[in-house]
Amino acid sequence: MRSRLQKRSKKAGLLPGSLIHIGETYTDKSRINLIHYNADDFGAKEVSSLADLPAGKDPQEIIWLNIDGLQDTKLLEEIGNHFALHPLVLEDVLNTDQRPKMEDYGDYLYIVLRNFNSQGSGDLISEQVSIILGKNFVLSFREKESSLFATIEERLRSSKGRIRKSGADYLAHAIIDNIVDNYFSVLENLEEKMEALEDALVNRIPPSTIKEIHNLKRELIVLRKSLWPLREAISSLERSDSSLISEDNSIYFKDIFDHVIAIIDSVETFRDMLSGLLDIYLSSVSNRLNEVMKVLAIIATIFMPLTFLAGLYGMNFKFMPELSWRWGYFGVLGIMLVIALFMIYYFKKKKWF
Amino acid sequence: MRSRLQKRSKKAGLLPGSLIHIGETYTDKSRINLIHYNADDFGAKEVSSLADLPAGKDPQEIIWLNIDGLQDTKLLEEIGNHFALHPLVLEDVLNTDQRPKMEDYGDYLYIVLRNFNSQGSGDLISEQVSIILGKNFVLSFREKESSLFATIEERLRSSKGRIRKSGADYLAHAIIDNIVDNYFSVLENLEEKMEALEDALVNRIPPSTIKEIHNLKRELIVLRKSLWPLREAISSLERSDSSLISEDNSIYFKDIFDHVIAIIDSVETFRDMLSGLLDIYLSSVSNRLNEVMKVLAIIATIFMPLTFLAGLYGMNFKFMPELSWRWGYFGVLGIMLVIALFMIYYFKKKKWF
Amino acid sequence: MRSRLQKRSKKAGLLPGSLIHIGETYTDKSRINLIHYNADDFGAKEVSSLADLPAGKDPQEIIWLNIDGLQDTKLLEEIGNHFALHPLVLEDVLNTDQRPKMEDYGDYLYIVLRNFNSQGSGDLISEQVSIILGKNFVLSFREKESSLFATIEERLRSSKGRIRKSGADYLAHAIIDNIVDNYFSVLENLEEKMEALEDALVNRIPPSTIKEIHNLKRELIVLRKSLWPLREAISSLERSDSSLISEDNSIYFKDIFDHVIAIIDSVETFRDMLSGLLDIYLSSVSNRLNEVMKVLAIIATIFMPLTFLAGLYGMNFKFMPELSWRWGYFGVLGIMLVIALFMIYYFKKKKWF
Amino acid sequence: MRSRLQKRSKKAGLLPGSLIHIGETYTDKSRINLIHYNADDFGAKEVSSLADLPAGKDPQEIIWLNIDGLQDTKLLEEIGNHFALHPLVLEDVLNTDQRPKMEDYGDYLYIVLRNFNSQGSGDLISEQVSIILGKNFVLSFREKESSLFATIEERLRSSKGRIRKSGADYLAHAIIDNIVDNYFSVLENLEEKMEALEDALVNRIPPSTIKEIHNLKRELIVLRKSLWPLREAISSLERSDSSLISEDNSIYFKDIFDHVIAIIDSVETFRDMLSGLLDIYLSSVSNRLNEVMKVLAIIATIFMPLTFLAGLYGMNFKFMPELSWRWGYFGVLGIMLVIALFMIYYFKKKKWF
Amino acid sequence: MRSRLQKRSKKAGLLPGSLIHIGETYTDKSRINLIHYNADDFGAKEVSSLADLPAGKDPQEIIWLNIDGLQDTKLLEEIGNHFALHPLVLEDVLNTDQRPKMEDYGDYLYIVLRNFNSQGSGDLISEQVSIILGKNFVLSFREKESSLFATIEERLRSSKGRIRKSGADYLAHAIIDNIVDNYFSVLENLEEKMEALEDALVNRIPPSTIKEIHNLKRELIVLRKSLWPLREAISSLERSDSSLISEDNSIYFKDIFDHVIAIIDSVETFRDMLSGLLDIYLSSVSNRLNEVMKVLAIIATIFMPLTFLAGLYGMNFKFMPELSWRWGYFGVLGIMLVIALFMIYYFKKKKWF
Repeated sequence: MRSRLQKRSKKAGLLPGSLIHIGETYTDKSRINLIHYNADDFGAKEVSSLADLPAGKDPQEIIWLNIDGLQDTKLLEEIGNHFALHPLVLEDVLNTDQRPKMEDYGDYLYIVLRNFNSQGSGDLISEQVSIILGKNFVLSFREKESSLFATIEERLRSSKGRIRKSGADYLAHAIIDNIVDNYFSVLENLEEKMEALEDALVNRIPPSTIKEIHNLKRELIVLRKSLWPLREAISSLERSDSSLISEDNSIYFKDIFDHVIAIIDSVETFRDMLSGLLDIYLSSVSNRLNEVMKVLAIIATIFMPLTFLAGLYGMNFKFMPELSWRWGYFGVLGIMLVIALFMIYYFKKKKWF
Repeated sequence: MRSRLQKRSKKAGLLPGSLIHIGETYTDKSRINLIHYNADDFGAKEVSSLADLPAGKDPQEIIWLNIDGLQDTKLLEEIGNHFALHPLVLEDVLNTDQRPKMEDYGDYLYIVLRNFNSQGSGDLISEQVSIILGKNFVLSFREKESSLFATIEERLRSSKGRIRKSGADYLAHAIIDNIVDNYFSVLENLEEKMEALEDALVNRIPPSTIKEIHNLKRELIVLRKSLWPLREAISSLERSDSSLISEDNSIYFKDIFDHVIAIIDSVETFRDMLSGLLDIYLSSVSNRLNEVMKVLAIIATIFMPLTFLAGLYGMNFKFMPELSWRWGYFGVLGIMLVIALFMIYYFKKKKWF
Repeated sequence: MRSRLQKRSKKAGLLPGSLIHIGETYTDKSRINLIHYNADDFGAKEVSSLADLPAGKDPQEIIWLNIDGLQDTKLLEEIGNHFALHPLVLEDVLNTDQRPKMEDYGDYLYIVLRNFNSQGSGDLISEQVSIILGKNFVLSFREKESSLFATIEERLRSSKGRIRKSGADYLAHAIIDNIVDNYFSVLENLEEKMEALEDALVNRIPPSTIKEIHNLKRELIVLRKSLWPLREAISSLERSDSSLISEDNSIYFKDIFDHVIAIIDSVETFRDMLSGLLDIYLSSVSNRLNEVMKVLAIIATIFMPLTFLAGLYGMNFKFMPELSWRWGYFGVLGIMLVIALFMIYYFKKKKWF
Repeated sequence: MRSRLQKRSKKAGLLPGSLIHIGETYTDKSRINLIHYNADDFGAKEVSSLADLPAGKDPQEIIWLNIDGLQDTKLLEEIGNHFALHPLVLEDVLNTDQRPKMEDYGDYLYIVLRNFNSQGSGDLISEQVSIILGKNFVLSFREKESSLFATIEERLRSSKGRIRKSGADYLAHAIIDNIVDNYFSVLENLEEKMEALEDALVNRIPPSTIKEIHNLKRELIVLRKSLWPLREAISSLERSDSSLISEDNSIYFKDIFDHVIAIIDSVETFRDMLSGLLDIYLSSVSNRLNEVMKVLAIIATIFMPLTFLAGLYGMNFKFMPELSWRWGYFGVLGIMLVIALFMIYYFKKKKWF
Repeated sequence: MRSRLQKRSKKAGLLPGSLIHIGETYTDKSRINLIHYNADDFGAKEVSSLADLPAGKDPQEIIWLNIDGLQDTKLLEEIGNHFALHPLVLEDVLNTDQRPKMEDYGDYLYIVLRNFNSQGSGDLISEQVSIILGKNFVLSFREKESSLFATIEERLRSSKGRIRKSGADYLAHAIIDNIVDNYFSVLENLEEKMEALEDALVNRIPPSTIKEIHNLKRELIVLRKSLWPLREAISSLERSDSSLISEDNSIYFKDIFDHVIAIIDSVETFRDMLSGLLDIYLSSVSNRLNEVMKVLAIIATIFMPLTFLAGLYGMNFKFMPELSWRWGYFGVLGIMLVIALFMIYYFKKKKWF
């Protein structure tokens, strides 16, 4: 997170709309992937410049241009000119700490999302995905290459389902749906960590627990920061009266909205349960202290009177009648035993052990 | 909960609308129960395929089709085709971690609910119940067979009350009312557990208390997660201007809405009281520690000076005049007694015991 | 509270609108009190059946029928038929765990309230009061007889104020005002308990404090659970465009609304102050532990070195030159005194006592 | 606060609109101050009855009637009749625990405010100020005499600013502005107390700290209880479409509204900071306990092994070879020194001191 | 903060609209900077009075007047008269503890902002910046000179971007954008402090940690107090239907709004993470106490029985058979060793170390 804010603050004082890439650079070169299809045809190729775009004589043909890697601001400007995008849209595409949002620019919709990953036991990784939905085209921008869009390309290629027949808005929906479904696996991962933590708390309370709880809390905070604006963005997509989204397809955005709500519900539930775990942890620490103190108190309470008695008869007074009694020693031993037994009985009654 | 999220995430990348059963499979085979009735007639039978549906010449006849077990996706598709349901509705029926909701598809309303059970001292069990209310039919889908609908069938059979005369919307209302009333027994069960816990806290504070409080809290969180969307769903049912719900019957949905509000109130109250129990528990632990430390401090404070005195006269100096005094020993014993009594008096005054 | 939920859950599966009394039965028999008045006349009698109702030829005459005790469901049905009440209204009258609410049934308004009492140092007692306001009549239902309505009857009898001239809505207002004013005395009682608790905390911290705080918190929760819906109910009464409430009198309902808001304010303030008391209590417990530990630490720190020194010269080595020194013993005593004084000085400087 | 609720509850059962003074009585007799002015003239005198009111032939003349002391209910009734006030308004004037509010009665606006004072180091004192703004008159009611209105009278007398030319609404604005500005000095006082507390916490943690924090919290709660409704009242004054407030002057009420918002902001900030102080206090108590326990543990850990060694060689066994060694005693002393030094080194390494 | 409230309360009782500078005075003399430009020309000079303002014959020319230092109330009045500003606007300009806000006065918009700085490791410093946007002019008021506007002046001079061609509203936007971007560097600074704190918590828990957490919390509170009204102000700027803001440029204010939302998100996230740090700190303190107590308990539990045994055989009874046994001494030593080893084994098993 640090790097983001730092880079952002470096922009202070610049003109709004100046194209500067804010965020990590993951790739050497931006890669452009061009897919064009209609109900009958399908073509996909990697292109190196916008000159390779189809002439666009077929009004039914839908073009999907995916750009991986955002460091090539020249290319972005070119795309902006070609599709007549507002400079602020390009600025937002390059600025990779956007909150998820949906903006209606009339001729096209601009949607920003955050795609989360939590590979293996690792930490939460996220990247910004920008989607521009126009009349017959979809532009998507990612920070780096990933397999995120492979299934969609495959579906387009094999013409599974209604996707080839359903227009650019359905394609945009498929992309967003894909990203939102990724949240479920992130939640699963979090849930597993929480359950492991809860199991651990039952047996032992290692001092690192609090750090782990803190880390989980942190991941939830990061997720949450992205989810609430996402909800808003999807909701405004669904309710948008833009002609770019057909009425038929708007129900699919409603479906994504339901998913986002369910994810938010789970995150809120996890937060509640995490605070419960913290309570368990803190009270375990207290119980542990209690247990330690009890052992100390029992030992001290039993041995202090005995040691005192032993000390008493270790005094060197000339005249101490008990010292010369025949059974004095064993008498004292007996008294000590009685005291010890009484103490133990007393603690048992008080349920100290 | 784990299984749900896991199965859900497996769907990532699939087409929306693909029929895949997400959730536990409880039965070998889906069972279809067909009830058809009007003011005069009533028939109920178990059918094996939709071919057994009545021809539907009687426009007054109401058909209630109940399906138990959701693994038979073929059957679901068949039903979907027969009643002209949207693919997303079927997807939601099969996906058993839906939030409660109500959706108006024009020709029919789709309602998802969660039915809770807490048998005996056991944990909270829940299943998803989907209801589709059409012009003259009600479809209900459950994850497994249960006695949940037995009373309604019985009422229909014996024509008790207005149920046979009141249309499909009243039947839907009766089903929902049944499910919502189940929440009350779940609340009762929770209340009993909380009272048992509170009684236990008065006498003893076993270290397991915190776990029990955590479990109760968890159950409340699960309930709550289901209740708020339920409230919304019932509210939109009540306010719906769908022609499927007659004005006369909408007051009955208002009644269910009141019940849901009352249940939510109770759950919120329970949460407050549970946090109160946690406070009691934590302060009991503190008090207990205080008590232990006091015993330790009293014992140590009384015996340390005495032991020191005994040690003092156990020194082997050649010249220690007291040692040869006639009443030295008894004098020291007397001084020790005075010290001990003073200490006890001091602690009494400080109200340490 | 337990009894309520239990009885309620027994209703699960029954038809909505079935008349079953849910709640405690306080009286042997329902008592019906009939008051009828206009600007000039006044009559009050106990009747045994609805046959005794006046024929109602005088259109100006207002009838107030008060029923104490709800176990006589037959009577309720009779009243329902006579005044043409909806079955759900009767069901709500009988179901004594309603949330406060106001419902407009066109020909009459149905209002449910909760009347609180806290007699002496006792616990909070509450009963449900249902009010039905019609064109020329007011029906009121209570769970048991009480003196709640005596002052209103007295006012009607002696024709104090505008009450005899102001219609059924003003009578309903007077009844509600009476109930809401009762909340103030309940608040007073709570305030006295809180102040007693706060005074107690200044001097002593008995372990029962936490229980008392918990009990107060509980009473506040119960009050609160009733107040928020009450606020809503009164607000909808005030804003109601029902012709049953004249414009002139609606300002009086506004007045009650202001009272309810003030009561809610106080309850919220009490909650804040109670959490402050809990903080004081918990920090007192901590301080107390600190104090105990300090005494222990001071005693131990002073006597441990002294006891060690005494033990040192109690050793039986053959060759210990100090033992045979003339002033060895007194020298050691002096050293011990110096050590003790230094320790005391050290603790004084550290402000340990 | 106690007195208020108690007196209020005594009103239970009375007719709404009955004039009874609820609150403390501060003065022997109500004092009436009459000020009348227009752009050219100004007159001020103390009157004893309403008969002294000017005949009111000059339609430009504005009358300001200020009443100090509310026990004279007769006088109030007289004023009510003269200015045609609603009985509920008079009741609210007399009932001195009103929440701040603004009510539009068509011919006049009724505004209730709470004026706070915190003289010296003393507690928060508050009084209710009622303002009635009519066409050409302003009535103000205070619980007791104070210098609150002196500056306004002075301004009117000397015709400073636009006040003499600007109508009754501007006068009402000046009065309210005066009261709201008083909140700033109360906040200042609170801020000073908080800073003193924070400074104190840096050095010492006297056990009274928690009480002081509690008291400050309490004062904030009292302030807050008054501020939120005040905000509402001023806001409805500002947005009021009453003809009594000219459009020109409404901007001045907007100004007061901004002040109230700023005050609320500060109070909320203070609450946050106070909870921070509580955290500091509680963690200081914990740290202090830690420190005490460390001293105890260090002393005990050093001297227990030494005392054991001394005890060992104090045993009276016949055959203990070490006792007769020539350097036995000094050897043991050396071993003791080594143990002590090692312990000190160990604690240093563990950073215990 | 103290100085602000104090100065503000001194204003109590004065007329609204009286020009008094509330806040620190940083400069000897107010400095006036005049910039005037159109698409072709640009001029900048420091002027000493308003007489130096250009005659304004060119309707396209935009004037930007920046005033640094607010103590010269005469000058302010002069400016107010020249640009026909409302007295309350001037009062707000001088009163430097305004909440951020935007007010539409028809002929001009009045915007107040707070500019934050956190130089080096230092504390948060803030100053109020007032902006008045009129038809062809922008007035800006700062408490003291700073480099804040240098980049904008430079941009105007060198005619970078669209700024010279875009009207006064674009200039106002550039100023506000500059200030909002400053928040990012403040956030960065806070983030660094938090990370340093978190790193520190992993290794050591110095008692000053709680103070640092408190200070960070305080800075967040101060930031937050400014951010929420800022959000409101920018939002009303963006949605304003004032003709002063062209439709083209309103999208730039939307952009600033997005930045503010992102800043608020970060601040809220920081608050959550800070409370997590507090949890870590407090639990570290508890763990530390536990550790100390364990060491104490282990030492005491091992040595108390041993010391008792040693004391036992130090008793001076005449008849103690063990004392004369040949191997008595070594037997006791052996028993002591066994006890010590058993204790150590017991603690190991209990995982105490």
